[in-house]
Amino acid sequence: MASRGQEIADKLTKVGESVLKDIDDGKNPSVDITMRTLSNVYFDEKTGLIRLGDEKQKRYYFNLGQAKKFLQTMLIAKQIKILLEQNKPALSIRQLFYTLKHEIPGAGENTFDIQEESDPIIEDVELMTDSLREELNLIATPNGVLAGPMVVEDKTGDVLDFTRMGSAGGAVPPIVEDDFFHIKEMSADYILVVEKYAVWNLLNQEKYWKKNNCLLLTGKGQPARAERRLLARFGAEYKIPIYVFTDMDPWGYYIYSVYKSGSINLAFFSEKAACPRAKYLGLSVKDVRDFDIPKSSWVKLNDEDYKRMEEIAGYPWFKKEKWQNELADLKKFGYKIEQDALVSKSIEFTANNYLPTKIENKDWFD
Amino acid sequence: MASRGQEIADKLTKVGESVLKDIDDGKNPSVDITMRTLSNVYFDEKTGLIRLGDEKQKRYYFNLGQAKKFLQTMLIAKQIKILLEQNKPALSIRQLFYTLKHEIPGAGENTFDIQEESDPIIEDVELMTDSLREELNLIATPNGVLAGPMVVEDKTGDVLDFTRMGSAGGAVPPIVEDDFFHIKEMSADYILVVEKYAVWNLLNQEKYWKKNNCLLLTGKGQPARAERRLLARFGAEYKIPIYVFTDMDPWGYYIYSVYKSGSINLAFFSEKAACPRAKYLGLSVKDVRDFDIPKSSWVKLNDEDYKRMEEIAGYPWFKKEKWQNELADLKKFGYKIEQDALVSKSIEFTANNYLPTKIENKDWFD
Repeated sequence: MASRGQEIADKLTKVGESVLKDIDDGKNPSVDITMRTLSNVYFDEKTGLIRLGDEKQKRYYFNLGQAKKFLQTMLIAKQIKILLEQNKPALSIRQLFYTLKHEIPGAGENTFDIQEESDPIIEDVELMTDSLREELNLIATPNGVLAGPMVVEDKTGDVLDFTRMGSAGGAVPPIVEDDFFHIKEMSADYILVVEKYAVWNLLNQEKYWKKNNCLLLTGKGQPARAERRLLARFGAEYKIPIYVFTDMDPWGYYIYSVYKSGSINLAFFSEKAACPRAKYLGLSVKDVRDFDIPKSSWVKLNDEDYKRMEEIAGYPWFKKEKWQNELADLKKFGYKIEQDALVSKSIEFTANNYLPTKIENKDWFD
Repeated sequence: MASRGQEIADKLTKVGESVLKDIDDGKNPSVDITMRTLSNVYFDEKTGLIRLGDEKQKRYYFNLGQAKKFLQTMLIAKQIKILLEQNKPALSIRQLFYTLKHEIPGAGENTFDIQEESDPIIEDVELMTDSLREELNLIATPNGVLAGPMVVEDKTGDVLDFTRMGSAGGAVPPIVEDDFFHIKEMSADYILVVEKYAVWNLLNQEKYWKKNNCLLLTGKGQPARAERRLLARFGAEYKIPIYVFTDMDPWGYYIYSVYKSGSINLAFFSEKAACPRAKYLGLSVKDVRDFDIPKSSWVKLNDEDYKRMEEIAGYPWFKKEKWQNELADLKKFGYKIEQDALVSKSIEFTANNYLPTKIENKDWFD
């Protein structure tokens, strides 16, 4: 077991011991649960992260509404501890659910009936142990690919050179913690995150990452946990600039903010999987004139876009003047533009003109 | 340009020349379009493929309802030819749309307004040239990963050893044609396609592919074009068995059938991207008793499942007795089971017991 796994197992042992002590003391056994309600989520301006507060609640065994949840909490904590100690392979949260779902003998009832019961308790255990789900040996499906001057030693022992990953690029693995995905060499001058696969693929074909000595990553739209965590590691471990390039629409802006500051519904994860240093490279309304993006590639904003723009404008992490201006400019402009649309200038325009110009002119904001 | 690209460009030149000849002859210029209506799709029992028939229609220039489509057909054929001849990078069909969308001078109208106009015409051009979209240098986003004893020389020159791809496995590239993804070595004893990423990931962690000397592929649910085409290549180029392992529900069965026989809405693609040799390994209703799969992991079939089972039972490629029996058994059983659920036996059960037993006993059907 990795030392981090041992640490977590020890924390879980302490949780169990505290419950046993409650029993020995004749008290109602309980565990502390950190609240994940909206009221306990806040944007921390100092760090630029969406964070979870300290509000806690006790979950009791002798409580009609909590008894089953208490049992389920013990089952999940125990199972995670066992799997860590036995060095078992990582499971998905659905697989973990299946390892625990069974009839309670004599009770005529199951430990768990649906996965919606086990998922929030896994988050409880993450918080109890101050660890990421991935450190509990639980995974979510990754989607991203990347290419560029980085060499990684994988947990399997394989050495992965991301300059030699062919047309596909290297796949992001489900767990990117250092003991699984140890970055041995990183010589990129900057990291460029591209929202869409088609744009990443075009840049990869043009060897953009080679010509510009950068690392090129896409999460294929809204990023999964692994891509977010990987970018957070890059942000924390390397002092190179990090740029995010998305569609010019509220959905693209929001994807940028997830990479940079995290998300509300995964506020606890956000602290460890956000990259506050990330800058927004574009597309921005200002680019339309600067780069003379032809009108034929503009798409009228629809009602849903306007509604989403309003919502985003209200998020504390979009309160900076630059972002309020961008959102106001977009509203005034009345059109959205996809990153793909830059091919209407020329197929090489994104790689040879747009991106280098933006980066050279430091034409980004955050 | 690759010789296949030259071949396609030559075919497109002929299409253009035939239109010019129509004009010279004073005839109404036209092109032949293969019908893609349901009536022109059939299941070919001999090959086991869902295929497109020969029904054709003429698309005329001097026809009020067809003039714009005729123009669009010429634009797309021309653009594809240019991109092939200039050795341009491959584009997504959305990017191709953007390269062509512009105002027609003086007409106050665009060449294309929405992508729904260009997509079907790309299919027309595929059929005109008897080529895959990927051979026209157009891509769809791939999702799959694979691991096992195969070495590929990629178009980039990179040599990819799929036994050394780390925890992530090797990503499937968007184009898997031989000149992009040249398989240099393949020493697998069989190929195992796994529906879900979480199951693939578990097997990969357990080095299933190493212990069993097989190639392990997942398309992450419903496969994209690249994974289907790659499996078709494996089926055609290697004489090793190919097994598909999915959920025991109509959706899993259908995914198997897409890999094996293709799909109706991509009937033309199916001919080149199906693998009629593929066998269904499981999960099958028979497995429930054979492997004593615990009741706690069964999930009641719902109305949508029953409806889908009816539909599937009616498809000609599910008409074989074995499949009709499987569908009848599932209906009678009343429950579905996910592949993930096998961890309820033990985490190692899938790799160490279920799969080897099924394969050793030749316990598959098709």
